[in-house]
Amino acid sequence: MSFPNKSANEDYSDYYYIDDPLPTVPVEIIPPCNPMIFNDFYHGSIVFMSVLMLIFLHLAVKRKRLCQDCWGGVPGLLSTVNFLEGDGHRGAASAVYSLVFCSICRVVLGHDPIPFIRDTPKDIKVCKEYWKILALLYYPIVYYVLLACETVKSIVGYIMGVFVSCTSFGFLIWQRVQCPKTPEIYKYYSLLSSLPQMVCLGYLSCLYIYLLVRNCNWFGTKEKTEIPGSNYYKEYVRNLLKKKSVTLVIDLKSVVTVSSRIVAFLHSFIYIPQKGFQVPVQVAISVTVAIIAVYQVALLLVARVVPTLQKARAGVTEDIAFVLTGFNIELSQDRAEVADLVRYYFWVIEVCYVSAIVLSCLATISMIMRSMVMHSRANLKALYRGDVLGVFGRRRKLQPSRLALTCWMAFTSYQSALVCLGFLVQQLVFFICTLFVGFLIIIPILYGRNLILFYLFKSMWPFWLGLVLALLSQNLLAQFAFLEKQESCLEITNRYRRALYISTYLFFAYNVLLGVLMGVWRMIFTALFNIVHLCRLDLSLLNRGVESFDPGYRCYYNFLKIEVSQAHPVMKAACCLLACFPNHGRNPVQEASDAEEGIQLVLTDRKPMTVASIKRAKARWWLAYTLVMNPSLAACRK
Amino acid sequence: MSFPNKSANEDYSDYYYIDDPLPTVPVEIIPPCNPMIFNDFYHGSIVFMSVLMLIFLHLAVKRKRLCQDCWGGVPGLLSTVNFLEGDGHRGAASAVYSLVFCSICRVVLGHDPIPFIRDTPKDIKVCKEYWKILALLYYPIVYYVLLACETVKSIVGYIMGVFVSCTSFGFLIWQRVQCPKTPEIYKYYSLLSSLPQMVCLGYLSCLYIYLLVRNCNWFGTKEKTEIPGSNYYKEYVRNLLKKKSVTLVIDLKSVVTVSSRIVAFLHSFIYIPQKGFQVPVQVAISVTVAIIAVYQVALLLVARVVPTLQKARAGVTEDIAFVLTGFNIELSQDRAEVADLVRYYFWVIEVCYVSAIVLSCLATISMIMRSMVMHSRANLKALYRGDVLGVFGRRRKLQPSRLALTCWMAFTSYQSALVCLGFLVQQLVFFICTLFVGFLIIIPILYGRNLILFYLFKSMWPFWLGLVLALLSQNLLAQFAFLEKQESCLEITNRYRRALYISTYLFFAYNVLLGVLMGVWRMIFTALFNIVHLCRLDLSLLNRGVESFDPGYRCYYNFLKIEVSQAHPVMKAACCLLACFPNHGRNPVQEASDAEEGIQLVLTDRKPMTVASIKRAKARWWLAYTLVMNPSLAACRK
Repeated sequence: MSFPNKSANEDYSDYYYIDDPLPTVPVEIIPPCNPMIFNDFYHGSIVFMSVLMLIFLHLAVKRKRLCQDCWGGVPGLLSTVNFLEGDGHRGAASAVYSLVFCSICRVVLGHDPIPFIRDTPKDIKVCKEYWKILALLYYPIVYYVLLACETVKSIVGYIMGVFVSCTSFGFLIWQRVQCPKTPEIYKYYSLLSSLPQMVCLGYLSCLYIYLLVRNCNWFGTKEKTEIPGSNYYKEYVRNLLKKKSVTLVIDLKSVVTVSSRIVAFLHSFIYIPQKGFQVPVQVAISVTVAIIAVYQVALLLVARVVPTLQKARAGVTEDIAFVLTGFNIELSQDRAEVADLVRYYFWVIEVCYVSAIVLSCLATISMIMRSMVMHSRANLKALYRGDVLGVFGRRRKLQPSRLALTCWMAFTSYQSALVCLGFLVQQLVFFICTLFVGFLIIIPILYGRNLILFYLFKSMWPFWLGLVLALLSQNLLAQFAFLEKQESCLEITNRYRRALYISTYLFFAYNVLLGVLMGVWRMIFTALFNIVHLCRLDLSLLNRGVESFDPGYRCYYNFLKIEVSQAHPVMKAACCLLACFPNHGRNPVQEASDAEEGIQLVLTDRKPMTVASIKRAKARWWLAYTLVMNPSLAACRK
Repeated sequence: MSFPNKSANEDYSDYYYIDDPLPTVPVEIIPPCNPMIFNDFYHGSIVFMSVLMLIFLHLAVKRKRLCQDCWGGVPGLLSTVNFLEGDGHRGAASAVYSLVFCSICRVVLGHDPIPFIRDTPKDIKVCKEYWKILALLYYPIVYYVLLACETVKSIVGYIMGVFVSCTSFGFLIWQRVQCPKTPEIYKYYSLLSSLPQMVCLGYLSCLYIYLLVRNCNWFGTKEKTEIPGSNYYKEYVRNLLKKKSVTLVIDLKSVVTVSSRIVAFLHSFIYIPQKGFQVPVQVAISVTVAIIAVYQVALLLVARVVPTLQKARAGVTEDIAFVLTGFNIELSQDRAEVADLVRYYFWVIEVCYVSAIVLSCLATISMIMRSMVMHSRANLKALYRGDVLGVFGRRRKLQPSRLALTCWMAFTSYQSALVCLGFLVQQLVFFICTLFVGFLIIIPILYGRNLILFYLFKSMWPFWLGLVLALLSQNLLAQFAFLEKQESCLEITNRYRRALYISTYLFFAYNVLLGVLMGVWRMIFTALFNIVHLCRLDLSLLNRGVESFDPGYRCYYNFLKIEVSQAHPVMKAACCLLACFPNHGRNPVQEASDAEEGIQLVLTDRKPMTVASIKRAKARWWLAYTLVMNPSLAACRK
């Protein structure tokens, strides 16, 4: 091994830091872009327009059902906001929340929190902090009109919706076509990061056009009086009352063969909507936002690091050999070979980084999907049945409380924040793991370099052999010596009981070393498991008994409590039933007959009522009532 | 800020590395020690003696109960090894296991695995590996005689026990008095690390002398025929049958005041033996070994690092200022002040290190204690009652299997290995935490230096203010606006339902940032919780549903399965009952009367049997049988 002398060492002092600007790679200069329609003007006008439209919507809509005596039922203040009810449009709400989330990303990462407000040059830092905090309120207000137009469920709303969504969509496309490249982070980062926004705005435009066309009574004035969402509740009650047919249900416990087990396991990652059940609006929103969060974080991580790595790789010259010798690392005698090797190592790092991101994406999205399938649906259904003990593991009151309400409000946000954080942690851990595998296992096998790990294993082989022998002999003894088959079950025979004790004693020391390995495996497995499941709110990362100390899981079960106590489908169906038959100025006898008419709800076809059919309907209604009050009976039905 | 010129930079190149030998501190040279009684000779003789004594013990003891037809009942092969039965002496077994554990520590850390075998100079490394593996078998065999002498429960055994334990104890004391200092690790390390051995050997000496004196029939030949341990089983059955009196039980759920809750919580960390219940031998051993493991690891960590830190602190001179300037760190203009500061920082590091070790010790020992109180006892009692679902959270068969048996064999070892590993991890994490607190919180408050963290918080205050305001306003809204008290429970009023939805939407962005903080807290809390509980086998580190993937917990529940299925006290009591009344050559009628006589077992006083007492005894026996078979009934008894 030869070291260069001191004078040579001083010669290459200019190349000492690898992150110095590399002269060989030309840096592309992106000019500041002035789009034809000015950003500030657009944003100012859209805010103005939104506020105007909201006021108009509130004036236009009469309150029809609630608080009719207040202000005479006009204007319909807050009538635009029941978008989080069970009957809210999941698609529209998800799209608007996604738009807001994308804006939060831009506020946190970008320089101009609110587009049309520019800082004065002095004291710029503090002002920006304030504007950033305000911007977190500004964007939800700007996009709110898109949600309000759908919620009021009137032609005026749909027309406005078409106008706002199409304008915003058009402007965004125009802006990106005009300025595809920006100097921040990576030249196409801005374009790529606004793709989800484009998709959401495009979806909203199509949705409003569709709703407008469907609901426009071009030639008539017939108005629908149906309560929104009541169809779903009727459907739910019908499903509850329907006699279960024997179907082939894929269940992890009932299947036996390995292949069917694998199919069932994979099946538990794919969300297939079930007839007669739909997830709450907040869950639908949180899943959409979570997927967009994964996209945004992954994009940011790729755009920040991969171009830098590629630039560094392109900038490696033969002089790198001197730099490495300065750090006492000598890869090869030949300078060209050293440069090739360093380039190769850079490439390996890049591959590891990208594969870690891909792995994290897969893990996070599969976790979100599994969460949807396994928990949001299964837990809600179980709670609707009344199985509190099975879901929470202990008795809990399904009543709203202050904590439960704040958790319900924060559920969607917490889910998306956890997805971001979980993705970052996963990416870091997977990157370290892939680097470890790449540099210490794959490169040594392929090229015979970096054999540290293999040398370590080789030097410790008597130790490993000893442990393997100890483990094996204990297992063999347990299998063939200590246990004897007696009447279809294994028993410890008296003959060898003492041999069991002596071998327990003699293997004590070996088992201590095995225990250390077990402990290391326990640590690694637990850490990896918890890191992969960090993004899931519906699982506690703590063990049975202290589950509720986990803030994420606490948020989840409080959310479930509110969801079940406030939006039980059977209760809603009953409410719809009562609301459908107006009883102004009727006498009690008439009301009772109305209630009996309501029984028709559970009949699928409207034939003239006979005595028998009324009896049957009564029986069904009592059955529904009994099943709701005694959920454990549902399992006993044929 | 002034930088020294290049020539000055070259002057102090000798002091560049802080771990270079420091010339100002005189190094104490410890001469190799030749004790009067040679180590090798002693070890050789003790091994020889052990083997001889074991053979003698086996020849001396006749097998009295089991396999009497095999080899005519003589010699009592393997009669010395039922030390892990429920009736084994917990103290002796724990002491011997502790001795073996201390030897394992010496084997792993020391240079001479087996004392009287020295390596040949060539190929020394590989040979040592082999010897180390053999040494793990050697030490259990050497110390086995100490356990065997107690297990045979005969005068010969006790005499031998006194001889071996006193000899070993005396030799160890002699050796340590002759050579208190050794050159390895730290001069007194060897002395301190052999303290637990001395305690164990001293205890065994006292125990054997006590047993010899108690059991020696100096003037008579009366021999006890009682089955060892039967007293305990009788006691257990008596306790089971005794009518429960209403006592003041401290229970976490029944208490109400804060102070009594704290008392109950602290109470759950202190193990107070309960009448009529004793933990299995393996649990007693594992607790003792775990405490010794804590001592050994803590001692090793202190002895390795603290003297080095003290040496480094003593070696700090004013030249350190140059070294720090070389790293671009300038603490002060005055060189003497820099040296004082560096010395102070070294002292802070030392304090942090020691307090981290103290914290880890406290955490680990409290975990071991809590494990004893909460789980080993509570779980065993519950399983004896038959409450499998409550303990394991799912139905499991309480039958021995191959896996369960290997887990049972490895339980003690795994517990001690996990304690060592858990302690190391805890120490590392606590050290980092204390360093963080010391350097970034306490020093800035006391001396106004290192204000990084405070500057960071100060620069982010609008952000924190925004978040706190968002959190506060949501909680206030939930408390006073959305919830209304209706018939003793809170309900969400229809009046404000839409206000709830709109505020949920508007707070979305703030809640995302709060969610990130929540996620960080979730990560930190989970990591700390799992690190503190890593040393406990009786808790799974994974959540409900996947608990059994945790290898530590799997080992624990398999251990419990074997313990309960093989050593149920009621079953043992029944066995004792049958074994106490020999039935050689009697007719079935006589046997039946014997069985009826056995009913007296559950009576505390032996009065002549009347018809009424027999009836009562029969009733009691049936009651015991019913309670054992139907554990759920036990709760209904008055």
